Parts: sequence; C-alpha cells; structure tokens
Amino acid sequence: MTVPRLKLGIAGLGRGFMLLLPTLAAHPGIRLAAAADPRSEARRQFRADFDATTYTEVADLCADPDVEAVYVATPHQFHREHVELAAAHGKHVLVEKPMALSLEDCQAMIDAMRRAGRWLVVGHSHSFDAPYLRAREMIDSQDFGAVRMISALNYTDFLYRPRRPEELDTSQGGGVVFSQAAHQVDIVRLLGGGHVQSVRAATGSWDSARPTEGAYSALLTFDNGVFANMTYSGFAHFDSDEFCGWSGELGQSRDPDQYGAARARLAETQAPEEEAALKNARTYGAGLSLANSQPQGIAHNHFGFVLVSCDGADLRPMPHGVQVYAHTRRYLEPLSPPEIPRREVLDELVGAIRHGCRPTHTGEWGMATMEVCLAMLESARHDREVMLSHQASVPKAGML
Amino acid sequence: MTVPRLKLGIAGLGRGFMLLLPTLAAHPGIRLAAAADPRSEARRQFRADFDATTYTEVADLCADPDVEAVYVATPHQFHREHVELAAAHGKHVLVEKPMALSLEDCQAMIDAMRRAGRWLVVGHSHSFDAPYLRAREMIDSQDFGAVRMISALNYTDFLYRPRRPEELDTSQGGGVVFSQAAHQVDIVRLLGGGHVQSVRAATGSWDSARPTEGAYSALLTFDNGVFANMTYSGFAHFDSDEFCGWSGELGQSRDPDQYGAARARLAETQAPEEEAALKNARTYGAGLSLANSQPQGIAHNHFGFVLVSCDGADLRPMPHGVQVYAHTRRYLEPLSPPEIPRREVLDELVGAIRHGCRPTHTGEWGMATMEVCLAMLESARHDREVMLSHQASVPKAGML
Ligand SMILES: NC(=O)c1ccc[n+]([C@@H]2O[C@H](COP(=O)([O-])OP(=O)(O)OC[C@H]3O[C@@H](n4cnc5c(N)ncnc54)[C@H](O)[C@@H]3O)[C@@H](O)[C@H]2O)c1
Ligand SMILES: NC(=O)c1ccc[n+]([C@@H]2O[C@H](COP(=O)([O-])OP(=O)(O)OC[C@H]3O[C@@H](n4cnc5c(N)ncnc54)[C@H](O)[C@@H]3O)[C@@H](O)[C@H]2O)c1
Repeated sequence: MTVPRLKLGIAGLGRGFMLLLPTLAAHPGIRLAAAADPRSEARRQFRADFDATTYTEVADLCADPDVEAVYVATPHQFHREHVELAAAHGKHVLVEKPMALSLEDCQAMIDAMRRAGRWLVVGHSHSFDAPYLRAREMIDSQDFGAVRMISALNYTDFLYRPRRPEELDTSQGGGVVFSQAAHQVDIVRLLGGGHVQSVRAATGSWDSARPTEGAYSALLTFDNGVFANMTYSGFAHFDSDEFCGWSGELGQSRDPDQYGAARARLAETQAPEEEAALKNARTYGAGLSLANSQPQGIAHNHFGFVLVSCDGADLRPMPHGVQVYAHTRRYLEPLSPPEIPRREVLDELVGAIRHGCRPTHTGEWGMATMEVCLAMLESARHDREVMLSHQASVPKAGML
Repeated sequence: MTVPRLKLGIAGLGRGFMLLLPTLAAHPGIRLAAAADPRSEARRQFRADFDATTYTEVADLCADPDVEAVYVATPHQFHREHVELAAAHGKHVLVEKPMALSLEDCQAMIDAMRRAGRWLVVGHSHSFDAPYLRAREMIDSQDFGAVRMISALNYTDFLYRPRRPEELDTSQGGGVVFSQAAHQVDIVRLLGGGHVQSVRAATGSWDSARPTEGAYSALLTFDNGVFANMTYSGFAHFDSDEFCGWSGELGQSRDPDQYGAARARLAETQAPEEEAALKNARTYGAGLSLANSQPQGIAHNHFGFVLVSCDGADLRPMPHGVQVYAHTRRYLEPLSPPEIPRREVLDELVGAIRHGCRPTHTGEWGMATMEVCLAMLESARHDREVMLSHQASVPKAGML
C-alpha cells in the first residue's frame, strides 16, 4: 500500500517559497496542487512549472477541495489571517517563521487549527537543519551528559539585502528579531530543552536609513538550569560563515574573497521603490522559476556558530555533521550531504498528516519561540529582564 | 639626562610573577630590587637570578628603602593587605588582577594609595595586550564610527589546570569570575567606553570535584548605548584559540593536534595535595627560573575571540594585529610582533611614576572592573539584573 502524496497549496510565491521550492519539487511525499499570489507573473510561472491551479486570493486557495494542506509563506503580518482561512476550510497548515507578530495571533492560530482538528507545523526554521536535529538526538542519547550552556552567534549582511519597506518597520514585523531570532531562538530552544525562563536582551537600530532592529544580543535562562547567549548582527562586516567552514546559510560554498557584495549592490539603488524592484527582479515569476531553483547546497543549511557545552563534551553543529569535542578526543559525527535540502520540515509535515507522528514544531512550539522573540524586543525597549509563561518542551527522544 | 630604572620589589613569586618575569627582566625601565615569598626555594632562586634582597614577609619588602614600587602578585585574598602595606611605606604599586575580592577592599586600596600620594596600577590584565589597545586607538580615531556591540568569547581548560584548593573556592576568590572575567571585563570595558550600566549573568558550577564557577555568560549594557555579551568556559573541550589563528593566550604557537592535555594530566592525580604538588612542580624556584622563563610568544597575548561592531567596520583584535572589516574592504592593521611581551603594563607603571602620565588601569578602573565581576556573581546567584554605580570611563584618546 503506497501512501498518497500530500496535495499542498502554496500561499505566497515569494522568497520563502523560492527557498523551499527545490524541496517541494523533490520531496516524494508532496504534490504541488495549487497556489495563491496577487502577482500574475508568479501565478503564470506556477502554472508553467506545475500541473496546478492558481488563485489571486488565499481564501480561494483554501476553498479548493484538491488542496489538503496549505503552506503559508506570505509576509508575516498575514500569517494569522491565512492560517485561520486554512483552518476554516479544514486544511492542515505549514506556516513560515515567524509564526505571527503577537502571542494573541499565535494563540488564535493554535485555537483555530485545534478546532478544525488539523495539524499545524511552524517552519521552515533552521532548527530543522539536520545538524541541529542530530545534536538534539546526541543529547538525548545521554552519551555526553547534561547540557549546560549554549552559545550562538551569527554575523551577516541581512539588513543590506534588498527589502520591502515593511521589512524595515518593526511594527509590521520588520527587523532581525522577527526574521532572524525566530531561527536562532528555535535552535537554542531545541538544544536547551525548550523551556526558557527569562530573557534579557539588547537590540541595535544603528542605521537611520534602515530604521529597524538589525542586531541583538540576549541572555536566556532555561527552567532546567541551562543558559544561553545569542548574538546576531545583520549590520555585520565580519561574516561568521568563516566559523562554518565557509559554507553558507543554504549549504552553498562561499568564496571568502567575495567581500561586501550586499552593501555594494544596495549602494547603487536610491529610492525604496528601486530597492523593492531590485528585490522583485529576483523573485519567482520574474527571473526565477523551478528551472533555476536548483539547490546550491552541497552541505547542510546552518545558522552560524552554535556550541552546546555538555558535561561530557562540547557539541558543535556544522554543515557537514556535528563536531564533537569530548574529554579525550575530537571527532566529526558525520552527516551525509543532503539529497533534498530542508526536507526535514516536509518530513515533519507529512509525518504528522500521513503517519500521525507528533511534530516537534507545533503551534505551541512556534508560539514559545515567538514569546522569546517578543520578550527580546520588550527587554530591549524597557531595559529589563522579562519572565516567560508560554514555553513548550522539546518532545521526548524518539518522538523527533 | 637618562631616567633611572624603577626599583621594583616583588610580592609573591608564583605563576603570575613567572608570566611577567620575561617582561620584568627585559624591560629597560625596570630593575628587580627585592622580593618576598614564604617559599625559601623561590627566594633562593630570586637571589640566584638577580642581584637582589629577599624577604619572607611582604611587610619587610615594603619597608626596604631600596624599593620604589611593589608588584603585588600574591593570591587574590592578600591583595588588599599587601597594597596597604606598600602604601604605608610610601611605595607605588602594581597589583595583579583581580584587584581584590570586594568593592570595600578595592576602595580601601584606592584610599590608602591616594593618602600615600603614590600611583596604583592594576594589571597585568589582557586589556593591556597591544591588539586591544590598538583597537581602542582606532575607535578613538573616529575613522570607524560609533561602537555599538561587542562580542567576546573564550573557551579554555582553565578549571582543569592544576590548582591550589582556594582557587576552587569562590569565597576565597576561586573560580573563573574572579580570575578570568577580570580579563574579559577589562577588555570589553576598554573597548566599550568603560561605563557599564547593567549586568545580567549566569554562571556554571558543573563539576562537583571542582566546586566553583567554571563558566559564565553575561550581557552588559553601557551608559553610551553599547551592549556586550561575554561568554567564558573553563570547562571547555572546544578551544577558541581556533578563532585566533591557533595562537595561544601568551602568543605562543598552538598545535591543534594536541587535544585534551589538561584533563589527561589532571586525571593522573588523586588528592588535592597531589594536585598542589603538580602545580608547585612548575613554579618559580622549583624547576622554573629566569633561565627558562623565555617568552614563548611569537605573537601578541590575547583573550579569545573579541569582535567590536562599529558603524563603519567590525574590528577584530587578533594576535598579529587588528583585523578590520570595513564597508568595502577587509584588511589587517598589523602590529609588529612583541619584542617584550606584556611590556604595556610596565610601560604604564613606569610612565606614571617617571613621567606623570595618567595610567588607564588606575585603582578606580580596576574597581569598576571588579564591580562588574561581583555583579556577575550576584546576578547569577539571585537571578536578576544588577545595576552598577562605581564605573569609570576610558581616559580620553591620547592619554592612553
Ligand atoms: N525559512 C526561511 O528560510 C525563510 C526565508 C525567507 C522568507 N521566509 C518567510 O516567508 C514569509 C514571506 O517572506 P518572503 O521573504 O518570501 O517575502 P517576499 O516579499 O519575497 O514574498 C511574499 C510573497 O507573498 C505574496 N503575497 C503578498 N501578499 C499576499 C496575500 N495577501 N496573499 C497571497 N500572497 C501574497 C507576494 O506577492 C510575494 O510573492 C515570511 O514570513 C518570511 O519570514 C522564510
Ligand atoms: N595577569 C595574569 O595573566 C595572571 C596569571 C596568573 C596569576 N595572576 C595573578 O597573580 C596572583 C597570584 O596568582 P598565582 O597564579 O601566581 O598563584 P601561585 O600560587 O602560583 O603563586 C602565589 C605565590 O605567592 C606566594 N605567597 C603566598 N602567600 C604569600 C604571602 N602572604 N606573602 C608573600 N608571598 C605569598 C606563594 O608562595 C607563591 O609563590 C593572583 O592574583 C592571580 O590572579 C595573574
């Protein structure tokens, strides 16, 4: 008996979708059934690439009886509305990070999906990357003793990549806390046990031309005594891919001699419209399609330097495996290169819907990550520590 | 007119002294006049190495009219007493980090030195290392814009090196907050402007056989809006010298293939006395002397990975210079290799006493660093942020 492919509808054919497109196209458990996007060129491209229906409105996509599950990859501020639409039509949902912009929205999404009796998975986030999942399994094996401290840092040019205006406006979900801490917090929570107790953070908005948080540093404490520091700069000149063997976020080979490209490219644009045009020039349907979505990745995705200090070893997830620094020896716990990059997020979705496996990245999990992100903003704004109350634990070993 | 050499007396002929010995012996402004240590073999060695007097008691050293300044390199818990003795005899003082174990003690030392009208310099700390001083000068040059964020991390086997019992007892000044944060805080304060506003920290005591803080992570905010994270593990298996071109703390070439040496050596000892014996076997007068104190350093001293994010560039002090990551290019601001390692601390002492140059690392500076260290312990103990009130600024550019 073969398990039928999951008929997936896509809401939002932008960069998030593009990054998952190679995975969506290659995953054996998925069939792309339909999509919705207001951009006609994106719809046209989707019809050309797939034997599928397209819609202007997410509501119509959700009403399509041929769609079993919806991948919500629209801008953050629409996540709640689009998840509620999917729930109202009895669809399962994969919603992009950040789950939403407020805890109220997260809770409404969870409630709607629960009422509908359908699965909700929050992703892709980099906590789905195989090296972090493998590190979590290694921790669960008890071979390395208790987790004690986690250090995570990532230096990128995030803020100087072409952006839509709302991506530079925190009140609309702009800035690195919503877009990037959503990854880093997810990873650190996965490795630290999930249950964050307190957050003290500082954020930086250092460029008046890009008036949102572009950097942060945070100290988290967990209910199990673990503590973690997380640092991110999207204003960075230094590039922490240096600490990941010059493998990039998507697993691609980086050329260390390519320097300052994002700032240089952006310096040539003047007005926000020009910048948006620059962003759109490399969008699905405008230059990009299935044909040129082939993954560049030769190694696993990653999100910068991460080190987990355990009693028996330090574990360092890397693009080619988990580097283990034990008492007497140091070795790589290797991971074979990804045949289908980012497949873990679709495995979790298909696993839940087709096989009833409880996902790790549930709505409750995603909401707990958003609680940390929102606490970072609050801590920085009010210069004080913030205590948390909506945290979720990592599911027990074996259930990953 | 030549400036006469400073006649220096040494209080405590242990590892701190050994680390500064090549500098003391080579510095053109210093003459070693006398020393005090209860260990007769150390006194004997000192007399053999130098044309100098030795004493059992620091009080007698301080009373020696041939001594102009005293280098207090006794264990932390004696710093206050020995500085007060020096002050009472009208001597200038260089006191090792950590300055003392309480703010009260620091204040008493400052007061005693002020009453005596003599200079007090607190060091060596790694904030004297040329790459950090050069980074500070570069910041002062205004060529790189405002400092915004500092990230500092250091992973070592500190806790598994042979220790005296009190070095493993926090109440007697043991643990990495007193011994190692004293360096890291000094560096971060130097680069961040000096004036820390708040501290939130967590500390780790993870090995019941070594019951003191062996690790910490802290988030600092400064009055000028700079924020910093500092992470240290002395339990580490990972070695952050990897991020410093495999150059060690003392500027020596590290062999990346030498792995786990400290834990392996310690595993062979059983009782605390055996461990103390192991420590003493490589002490001045017992195996070590001027003859084998030659500096291993071929590069500058360092204290792990440090990155200063400025508006116009990220500055990364490295053992061979300051790596500059600017908008359009990346380059090394080179420093010639140290002819006399750690000479900066003696330059500051001699500069103050002989030339009236205000030192950076005054008693007030050292007390401010200790206030941060003590706040880290308090923050971790009571799980809350600690506000500071005894901070000192970095002296204006040109006065360094
Ligand atoms: N996991 C990852 O690595 C990753 C990477 C990039 C983006 N994302 C996430 O994907 C989401 C989208 O971001 P993006 O970078 O793709 O933005 P984008 O601007 O590149 O794409 C957004 C797309 O949604 C479409 N859209 C806008 N409003 C719509 C609506 N009401 N109905 C249907 N479609 C609509 C736009 O036309 C566009 O095609 C965000 O939540 C973002 O955080 C995740
Ligand atoms: N800046 C650095 O890099 C660095 C490195 C090591 C130590 N230190 C500092 O140096 C100080 C000493 O630490 P250490 O590692 O050298 O310890 P140690 O145990 O190696 O040496 C201490 C020395 O002081 C002597 N001593 C003890 N009590 C004394 C007394 N009452 N009067 C005179 N001498 C006495 C001991 O006999 C011994 O020779 C500490 O404050 C430490 O933080 C600094």
